Amino acid sequence: MERVFRLVMSCPDNVGIVAKVSQFIAQYNGSILEANHHTEKNENWFFMRNEITANSLPFGLEQFKQAFSPIADELNMTWQVTDSNIRHRVILMCSKQSHCLADILNRWHSGDLNCDIPCVISNHDDLRELVQWYGIPFFHVPMGSDKQQHFSQVSEIIDQHHADTIVLARYMQILPANVCEKYHGRVINIHHSFLPSFAGAKPYHQAFERGVKLIGATCHYVTADLDAGPIIDQDVVRISHRTQPEDMVRLGKDVEKLVLARGLHLHIEDRIFIHGNKTVILD
Amino acid sequence: MERVFRLVMSCPDNVGIVAKVSQFIAQYNGSILEANHHTEKNENWFFMRNEITANSLPFGLEQFKQAFSPIADELNMTWQVTDSNIRHRVILMCSKQSHCLADILNRWHSGDLNCDIPCVISNHDDLRELVQWYGIPFFHVPMGSDKQQHFSQVSEIIDQHHADTIVLARYMQILPANVCEKYHGRVINIHHSFLPSFAGAKPYHQAFERGVKLIGATCHYVTADLDAGPIIDQDVVRISHRTQPEDMVRLGKDVEKLVLARGLHLHIEDRIFIHGNKTVILD
Amino acid sequence: MERVFRLVMSCPDNVGIVAKVSQFIAQYNGSILEANHHTEKNENWFFMRNEITANSLPFGLEQFKQAFSPIADELNMTWQVTDSNIRHRVILMCSKQSHCLADILNRWHSGDLNCDIPCVISNHDDLRELVQWYGIPFFHVPMGSDKQQHFSQVSEIIDQHHADTIVLARYMQILPANVCEKYHGRVINIHHSFLPSFAGAKPYHQAFERGVKLIGATCHYVTADLDAGPIIDQDVVRISHRTQPEDMVRLGKDVEKLVLARGLHLHIEDRIFIHGNKTVILD
Amino acid sequence: MERVFRLVMSCPDNVGIVAKVSQFIAQYNGSILEANHHTEKNENWFFMRNEITANSLPFGLEQFKQAFSPIADELNMTWQVTDSNIRHRVILMCSKQSHCLADILNRWHSGDLNCDIPCVISNHDDLRELVQWYGIPFFHVPMGSDKQQHFSQVSEIIDQHHADTIVLARYMQILPANVCEKYHGRVINIHHSFLPSFAGAKPYHQAFERGVKLIGATCHYVTADLDAGPIIDQDVVRISHRTQPEDMVRLGKDVEKLVLARGLHLHIEDRIFIHGNKTVILD
Repeated sequence: MERVFRLVMSCPDNVGIVAKVSQFIAQYNGSILEANHHTEKNENWFFMRNEITANSLPFGLEQFKQAFSPIADELNMTWQVTDSNIRHRVILMCSKQSHCLADILNRWHSGDLNCDIPCVISNHDDLRELVQWYGIPFFHVPMGSDKQQHFSQVSEIIDQHHADTIVLARYMQILPANVCEKYHGRVINIHHSFLPSFAGAKPYHQAFERGVKLIGATCHYVTADLDAGPIIDQDVVRISHRTQPEDMVRLGKDVEKLVLARGLHLHIEDRIFIHGNKTVILD
Repeated sequence: MERVFRLVMSCPDNVGIVAKVSQFIAQYNGSILEANHHTEKNENWFFMRNEITANSLPFGLEQFKQAFSPIADELNMTWQVTDSNIRHRVILMCSKQSHCLADILNRWHSGDLNCDIPCVISNHDDLRELVQWYGIPFFHVPMGSDKQQHFSQVSEIIDQHHADTIVLARYMQILPANVCEKYHGRVINIHHSFLPSFAGAKPYHQAFERGVKLIGATCHYVTADLDAGPIIDQDVVRISHRTQPEDMVRLGKDVEKLVLARGLHLHIEDRIFIHGNKTVILD
Repeated sequence: MERVFRLVMSCPDNVGIVAKVSQFIAQYNGSILEANHHTEKNENWFFMRNEITANSLPFGLEQFKQAFSPIADELNMTWQVTDSNIRHRVILMCSKQSHCLADILNRWHSGDLNCDIPCVISNHDDLRELVQWYGIPFFHVPMGSDKQQHFSQVSEIIDQHHADTIVLARYMQILPANVCEKYHGRVINIHHSFLPSFAGAKPYHQAFERGVKLIGATCHYVTADLDAGPIIDQDVVRISHRTQPEDMVRLGKDVEKLVLARGLHLHIEDRIFIHGNKTVILD
Repeated sequence: MERVFRLVMSCPDNVGIVAKVSQFIAQYNGSILEANHHTEKNENWFFMRNEITANSLPFGLEQFKQAFSPIADELNMTWQVTDSNIRHRVILMCSKQSHCLADILNRWHSGDLNCDIPCVISNHDDLRELVQWYGIPFFHVPMGSDKQQHFSQVSEIIDQHHADTIVLARYMQILPANVCEKYHGRVINIHHSFLPSFAGAKPYHQAFERGVKLIGATCHYVTADLDAGPIIDQDVVRISHRTQPEDMVRLGKDVEKLVLARGLHLHIEDRIFIHGNKTVILD
């Protein structure tokens, strides 16, 4: 993959934003590999993402930032520019089930997920060997009676490893509100239902009881409001009256791992904007 | 299509049911075109559907019933045998939107829906000409201030036309409990969301607010509990942050008409069993 | 729908195209509703589509063209700007099967397809009444022994009605090469297979013979090379060993009409670029 | 999972087969967990599969066979009865790409694939450690200049390990005709296209050239006719003009591993009948 700078921004909508940003890139002879924008009309808000070949530019990331700052200030932008060579640092959290974890690790190992995985954290020790086979440190942080203590330890590990993203790969614990706050917009969860249906515990059993004909999975950012954060991706698989809850568990795994991987892929390419309780995804 | 007798039954599960039923069919030299069965293990309940070539049997429908009755009684069956030449009588109910109605009428006209449509009932007069073009009587029953009166009239028309099935093809009124009771298991509705998400009014706007990435439609039997009856079929279509509610309405129409047509098709082939609040579909 | 001008262009890729075009729009205070671009890297070719609110601009279509021409010339663009209020003129061609035709007519009648339909042409008279119900002229041009004569008449009707788009809605005749040439990039066909599999006649029978587990439909521009023109959209539906060719015909209709409608929708919004034998679709 | 006997059979169609087989099961008080049958009408051929609870029967597998033999002979059946406790012995063959292999191994390790994996064979040594982590022997059989010699060695390993199924999990070599013959109906391949489109080498590049809007994967039994054997399962994923061949490779992996896993799952549950060049799948 070619090295690119990713310039992502959002700001109040206005005439001429694209012109100003494109003009900025063109004046430095920047070669745009991909560009997308979107306007939320109801709220008059503008979102843009540009991929610019690093080689085509006369400067590095810091100088880019300095050069672009005046435009960003003028337009009241929330913005960042990232270097595709500086990879996201993604910590995975899991419990006992391996399907999502193994899937992400294999993608990473094969070079299909362009990120670093500084460590894996789990409340159980079961998946240690799988993780260590990939040469990744594994931290077992048991969940004792003191939930806050568990999360203090988890939080400490996250911070020590300078993670910018945390993926809950079927980590079966509810994050306390203070943890959700601290890592706002950085924690990605996979919920094993087609949200907003069947939030909370045992969604496949809920789906069985209701007699739905499709089951699904939802990848979303975690907020203090359980299973109600901004949705990144969703998908479904067809079932029938013959599909027992245990079959749903098996079939659902395929959707869970696929949807989680797609969501993570979008996230580490800086394609997702959180806007209120929704996502704008420029891909 | 070859003329067949459809023998459908459900009863407490037991050893030897299939043997008895198959033996019954074989002793009259019946040629089985299709046979399916299913056991709900939790509740120990058995479901079976057989399609037998009418030509292969030495008797007609009435004699079939008489001959089979002893077996049905012995096994405590709920059962029926129907003749594919005696078509379901399906009354369509609509309001102002034509997509589901026009789709069903075209399928029927093309010979893809093997049923009779004795009439269409609507609370608005808008779709009269469309219906009459197909040579089908159209009844405009306005919804005045007296809701019960509206439904008395509707119910009368249904009964006069000897309908066995009522399809709510985007008929935008909630049926009163007594009507739901009276036509239990015979009223098919299409709801424009992936139930149980977004029951009730304006589901596409609810979906927009929640920021889901797929929208759907659900075909279900109507019960007194709004949008909570046994689900027959569901499907979804992918959307993005760019999809405004009015786009969802347009895109959703495709799913609605497809799912409703599939559900109706299963129903008129006597493939659906209602079991508690779920469906068993033998196809 | 708000009135917009659609500026679509393609040209050799270069630094600064987006900047120049956006600057042009901004200098006239144009409000961009939607903008997309794409670069074919292998061939170094650039594609762009902008929707600009007509109200936000100080001039009409002709002046827009004059003002933009110098930029287009400078950048060697193939381009056009269209007014969403000037609707595409779409002639439908059909044979005996009504599913695609009835579906398009209902979408058009419901206001979901923003085009004019000056007339329908068919080699059979079967669907005359359906078409005329919508108040659309119907031309029956029988296919006699002289194929060229048939197509001369068809071509004359097309030209008399100033059609810019021709939709083959299951019109079962192969267009001669000269007709394909004459209307290059303007004739949309629906083929009832997942191309390039099963080109030519009786694709469902071919699919049955091969034992595939999904069947599909393909919407494409017609070229002299049978069923090999640029693909606009495709979709599939799952089948099984039980699905007989006649069931495929029935199930396939749903995919055919959906895919054709989606393709036509993209076309009349000027979202499709033909590039070599492929399409670039900016949506 | 409850231990079951799976009685699978095919034979010329006739009146009374279901009755005879069901009666046989019922007379020994067998509890049928699942039963399916199908008739190929064109060829007048009957297929049936029964799952009978082992506990409900008064005898074991051998006695079952003896008891059933007279019926099978009478009806000219091709048949077998298997014990779900005696697991299929599945040898995996791979090359350098790990996605299919890692996916199957994780499913097997998680208990979602009810088979034994006596060993993995590869023409490259790259995936040795991954395989050995699961405690499974890995055989590296390099492909030298003598292709027949390579396949002699492979065949020897297969036979030594008493494999009944061979899965080509992106094993990039074409099996010689004699190997295809020897293991007829026992070798499952995953091809990375929606067959019959794009058989042979580099299907994603072929798909890119043709400009299709969906790419797919096909799981099929291997025959001497390259990529033309009986199809077990297929699926697709949507792409666009922006999807480069290398993106197709990445996206296609998800379809490949899913479709291969589903196909293998059906195979090891004895649900697939090969009939001519097609499959009948009773699920």
